[in-house]
Amino acid sequence: MKKTMRTIIKREAKEGAELATREIPQITSNEVLVKVLATSICGTDYHIYSWDPWSQGRIKPPKVMGHEFAGEVVKVGEKVSKVKIGDIVSAETHIVCGKCELCLTGQAHICTETEILGVDTDGTFAEYVAIPEENAWVNDPSVPPEYLCIQEPLGNAVQTVLSGEIIGKTIAVVGCGPIGIMAVAVGKAVGAAKVIAIEVNEYRLNLAKEIGADVTINPLKEDVINRVHEETEGLGVDVVTEMSGSPIAIEQALKYIKLGGRMAMLGIPTEDVKMDVANGIVFKGIQIHGIVGRKMYDTWYQVKGLIASGNLNLDKLITHRFDLEDYEKGMELMKSGNCGKVVLFPNMK
Amino acid sequence: MKKTMRTIIKREAKEGAELATREIPQITSNEVLVKVLATSICGTDYHIYSWDPWSQGRIKPPKVMGHEFAGEVVKVGEKVSKVKIGDIVSAETHIVCGKCELCLTGQAHICTETEILGVDTDGTFAEYVAIPEENAWVNDPSVPPEYLCIQEPLGNAVQTVLSGEIIGKTIAVVGCGPIGIMAVAVGKAVGAAKVIAIEVNEYRLNLAKEIGADVTINPLKEDVINRVHEETEGLGVDVVTEMSGSPIAIEQALKYIKLGGRMAMLGIPTEDVKMDVANGIVFKGIQIHGIVGRKMYDTWYQVKGLIASGNLNLDKLITHRFDLEDYEKGMELMKSGNCGKVVLFPNMK
Amino acid sequence: MKKTMRTIIKREAKEGAELATREIPQITSNEVLVKVLATSICGTDYHIYSWDPWSQGRIKPPKVMGHEFAGEVVKVGEKVSKVKIGDIVSAETHIVCGKCELCLTGQAHICTETEILGVDTDGTFAEYVAIPEENAWVNDPSVPPEYLCIQEPLGNAVQTVLSGEIIGKTIAVVGCGPIGIMAVAVGKAVGAAKVIAIEVNEYRLNLAKEIGADVTINPLKEDVINRVHEETEGLGVDVVTEMSGSPIAIEQALKYIKLGGRMAMLGIPTEDVKMDVANGIVFKGIQIHGIVGRKMYDTWYQVKGLIASGNLNLDKLITHRFDLEDYEKGMELMKSGNCGKVVLFPNMK
Amino acid sequence: MKKTMRTIIKREAKEGAELATREIPQITSNEVLVKVLATSICGTDYHIYSWDPWSQGRIKPPKVMGHEFAGEVVKVGEKVSKVKIGDIVSAETHIVCGKCELCLTGQAHICTETEILGVDTDGTFAEYVAIPEENAWVNDPSVPPEYLCIQEPLGNAVQTVLSGEIIGKTIAVVGCGPIGIMAVAVGKAVGAAKVIAIEVNEYRLNLAKEIGADVTINPLKEDVINRVHEETEGLGVDVVTEMSGSPIAIEQALKYIKLGGRMAMLGIPTEDVKMDVANGIVFKGIQIHGIVGRKMYDTWYQVKGLIASGNLNLDKLITHRFDLEDYEKGMELMKSGNCGKVVLFPNMK
Repeated sequence: MKKTMRTIIKREAKEGAELATREIPQITSNEVLVKVLATSICGTDYHIYSWDPWSQGRIKPPKVMGHEFAGEVVKVGEKVSKVKIGDIVSAETHIVCGKCELCLTGQAHICTETEILGVDTDGTFAEYVAIPEENAWVNDPSVPPEYLCIQEPLGNAVQTVLSGEIIGKTIAVVGCGPIGIMAVAVGKAVGAAKVIAIEVNEYRLNLAKEIGADVTINPLKEDVINRVHEETEGLGVDVVTEMSGSPIAIEQALKYIKLGGRMAMLGIPTEDVKMDVANGIVFKGIQIHGIVGRKMYDTWYQVKGLIASGNLNLDKLITHRFDLEDYEKGMELMKSGNCGKVVLFPNMK
Repeated sequence: MKKTMRTIIKREAKEGAELATREIPQITSNEVLVKVLATSICGTDYHIYSWDPWSQGRIKPPKVMGHEFAGEVVKVGEKVSKVKIGDIVSAETHIVCGKCELCLTGQAHICTETEILGVDTDGTFAEYVAIPEENAWVNDPSVPPEYLCIQEPLGNAVQTVLSGEIIGKTIAVVGCGPIGIMAVAVGKAVGAAKVIAIEVNEYRLNLAKEIGADVTINPLKEDVINRVHEETEGLGVDVVTEMSGSPIAIEQALKYIKLGGRMAMLGIPTEDVKMDVANGIVFKGIQIHGIVGRKMYDTWYQVKGLIASGNLNLDKLITHRFDLEDYEKGMELMKSGNCGKVVLFPNMK
Repeated sequence: MKKTMRTIIKREAKEGAELATREIPQITSNEVLVKVLATSICGTDYHIYSWDPWSQGRIKPPKVMGHEFAGEVVKVGEKVSKVKIGDIVSAETHIVCGKCELCLTGQAHICTETEILGVDTDGTFAEYVAIPEENAWVNDPSVPPEYLCIQEPLGNAVQTVLSGEIIGKTIAVVGCGPIGIMAVAVGKAVGAAKVIAIEVNEYRLNLAKEIGADVTINPLKEDVINRVHEETEGLGVDVVTEMSGSPIAIEQALKYIKLGGRMAMLGIPTEDVKMDVANGIVFKGIQIHGIVGRKMYDTWYQVKGLIASGNLNLDKLITHRFDLEDYEKGMELMKSGNCGKVVLFPNMK
Repeated sequence: MKKTMRTIIKREAKEGAELATREIPQITSNEVLVKVLATSICGTDYHIYSWDPWSQGRIKPPKVMGHEFAGEVVKVGEKVSKVKIGDIVSAETHIVCGKCELCLTGQAHICTETEILGVDTDGTFAEYVAIPEENAWVNDPSVPPEYLCIQEPLGNAVQTVLSGEIIGKTIAVVGCGPIGIMAVAVGKAVGAAKVIAIEVNEYRLNLAKEIGADVTINPLKEDVINRVHEETEGLGVDVVTEMSGSPIAIEQALKYIKLGGRMAMLGIPTEDVKMDVANGIVFKGIQIHGIVGRKMYDTWYQVKGLIASGNLNLDKLITHRFDLEDYEKGMELMKSGNCGKVVLFPNMK
């Protein structure tokens, strides 16, 4: 086996990233070494690339970027007992303590000692990556790697859409970035009565429509509150999945959510949100659910089951495919918003 | 308006039924009169027709048969406030007290004072039927009446399949009579990972396959316990919906249900069932749910939402259509088992 | 039977109320006439008395005030089938439509057509009151009327505390007005691990302690965020019941609620609340539940069961008892905040 | 530190047990060595002692018996990170794989690779025991060891009683052995409306009464079905916790459980049970829950929280205390049934 590999690294505390050659990682006794087959770009990767305030506070360069991936196990540590060489794996990217109250009660996804692959450790924008066995999710090898690599963000969408009742319900997906369009696909896959996609970027709104949204609304062009009521017999939607992080979108959602409805919030506002608690929350009797990551590992089993169902429109979720070395094209697309999922392949060329 | 109508009645306490002319029913102040557009045959109707022991204890002839239907409201009582002339309605067939603890806590479907339309009162195998306003379910008029008339049994299937988690889960539908094939359709519509249909009648097993079952098993031809394990990585199924009422099928199901699984029981065994409580229930940590009717009216909203989703394969559920006067053809089909839903139309000829 | 009765009425659109003689109400066919045995003062009654902005927009004088009560049925309408003369009843004060989607799916407490007894109709600060049979809750006659009359607000506390898991959990009750102290009592009755009462009024804080609060915090005197963390091993509380309606208290609660926790909100802020959605809701993975009234009638059965359990410290919840004519003493106490529940008796003198 | 310790061992494949001196166990890198302070006798211990058919199939002598305990950590392996020397710990007695679907989805208590402390490994009827760090539950050291040692069976009772709604509900505890009386205590602690204890042994029935059962029924002396209906307004009980394993008791329970009720089954019948599925399960719309062990570790946190609440009547649950060497007295009591929990102390004398 060769000793070095190509990687995309965040070398310095500034905008951008670089193609660099690194040694293939050593593994510890509980880790596995995985040859990356496909790795997709997350919004977080773009935040790190563009060196936004969050990245400045969190990332310690140099660091290999990337965390959404699928690959083949090529080496296992001596204490690895479940994962085998040849397995096609993806990663749950939250590396957790496993011993706190949250980890011990099915809430490991909000463990306070969480480290994130490709954020706090070297990631998957590389030919090889080392991950702990307990974070390795063994896939059905008959599913193409480009679908498998997007399971991690798909899990975010699944946890958000499924944080309460959804079958036969109306749902508004607010913000149709990559996870938003996945939420549209999930809503359709599980029999939501009507999926309403809300997004300001027309490319993404069209993509939501292609993926199956029954209604698309651009709040820059129409009155979103009125339109949602028109589409729901005047009652508002049963479920809101908030993926925009926009304070104004959140305030609007409290106006068009149905009495007794559920708002699952995954988007991250960068400032406080003024909420009409009396009329929007208390008198409406709604529930608000904060969503982080994926339930470990209930959500992964749901994702696996939904892929197996054949109901998910996976093909249309991926809009662009590049060789790893062309990562900058992907970052440009992320900046423009004119994309669904962008997948990088280490050996496409 | 004419004064009389054609009906199919159970005239005497013996096998069979008759075509008879009756006066169009009078309505009370809280009732609506509905012109029947389509009415389907339930297993219960066949039990009454064949005069089985249950019918002998319950039915007081003469009685107009039938309860699954859709029709147009032609007259409303003076205290009716919601339903309007011209509305296309179906009926929740349980007429309940509305005042007991069960009715007051979301469990009206098991009210002990329940009367059933077409069983305890005159039913829908007729040109007209009178029903209480509170049992009238107002439909989307754009959906064809033959789909609307099967919502009542579809609601049984929906309550059974959705009595716990189902999205991304494996499910065995045991017994593929009309409600069983609906359970297959519902499982597919909501993203079950794999739907396994189990049935001894080959016609129905093929129908289950056409409707979307991923796996079909005839227990007369193969070892159902082994086969289910083969299809589920050796783990057994997450969910069993028991629609057969067969003691042996129930005993088998306890052997192939996954640890921690759920068995929703709608089928009615006619004798006691010997259950291996220790190994099949306790050590497996499973849940068993007894299912009756439809939640009033949570299940109806789920049915409406699923029809709206477009995910339900409604068309294939209906295998035969007859004029009301040809009801005996329908009864013969029910006897043979070689049918899905059989729909009667009062004015097909 | 005499023809007239003493009442406390809101006669004009201004501050105050008056003792007035009125005719004993006529009942319709679905109503019952009840002789009031005990009636307690709700915060809403005080709002109406003081003629706050909400009252000015909602109340149409003249109106008999009051809605929390227990009394003896002395007359029943001809269509009343369940309630009998001699029954000791209280009232669910929400008079709902019974026909909308919310009413039909177990959410009648948020029906948009709700009328409230003593707000939109003549109420219970009177010797007699007429209520619809379906709002009459038949009591165990062995329980004293002064306990029975507070079941309606107790139901608010029960719905709030029990809107999610509570057994063995830590809970902060924010705001210890009458419903807050009831929440303290409920928390203790159901085995909460630790009940923390937070309140600025020392009288109420002491009352919370007497009723069983394990910890009491006056935010004017100590750092509530630090103190809650000290009392919860640094983790924060599992459950917050928000009964203060104070924006600052809500902002603080988002800082001391545990990751994955639940905040049930009953208090009504009179202005928008600036919420740190990112850190307080999303990253913490919490749930927020808006709470209105009582589930009809699940909550009433829970209240009945909790009273039967003997675990509720009912006696200490009632701090003052007056004759109906001394209602102004009660209103003064409500203004000062130096009371628990204040009960009026029509014939105490 | 001394090298040897006193233990109670099952030396041979026959009835009985022996006091024996053994070497103090060595620990591996992930284990902790605990000095036993108190250890209680489980029904399983008595099964092993009496060498019943189950034991004959499962136990491989020689084995140190016992698994319910509390003790002080005196040594920790080099990879132990959470538990510290001096901690007072108890043990979750299920040693699970941690990697299967069940373990990864909050159902480790039914992991198929489970080994049980004191059954498959050397146990706690000894002065010292070695346990994996991940099975060590760190206690509040202010609680007496004799209460802490019974948390493991208390967890069984808690999981059974709390497998569904219980607050304000009526509950029948069927079988008042040690776990049954704990279920009585838990029911009272969480505000059950009425706790009905059903048991044939008068000692245990009296103990149930002392612990707080509102009603006690000896099925050998009265008609249990009639009596339960009399105590529940003719409706039957909301919840049955089945701890007897008696087929006849289970058949009766299906007759006195309320429509829509819940039967949580922990008792292990040694033969098939004839169940009236039609009338007892389906038409009644009940739920049956199979219960195994304790949820890892949700149930442990509930137990901890309930002990902290002060609502549990722990003192009366322990009826006998002996020195470890007097284990035979404890076994005799278990045989007679005339005891609650029996606690052994390694150094009582």
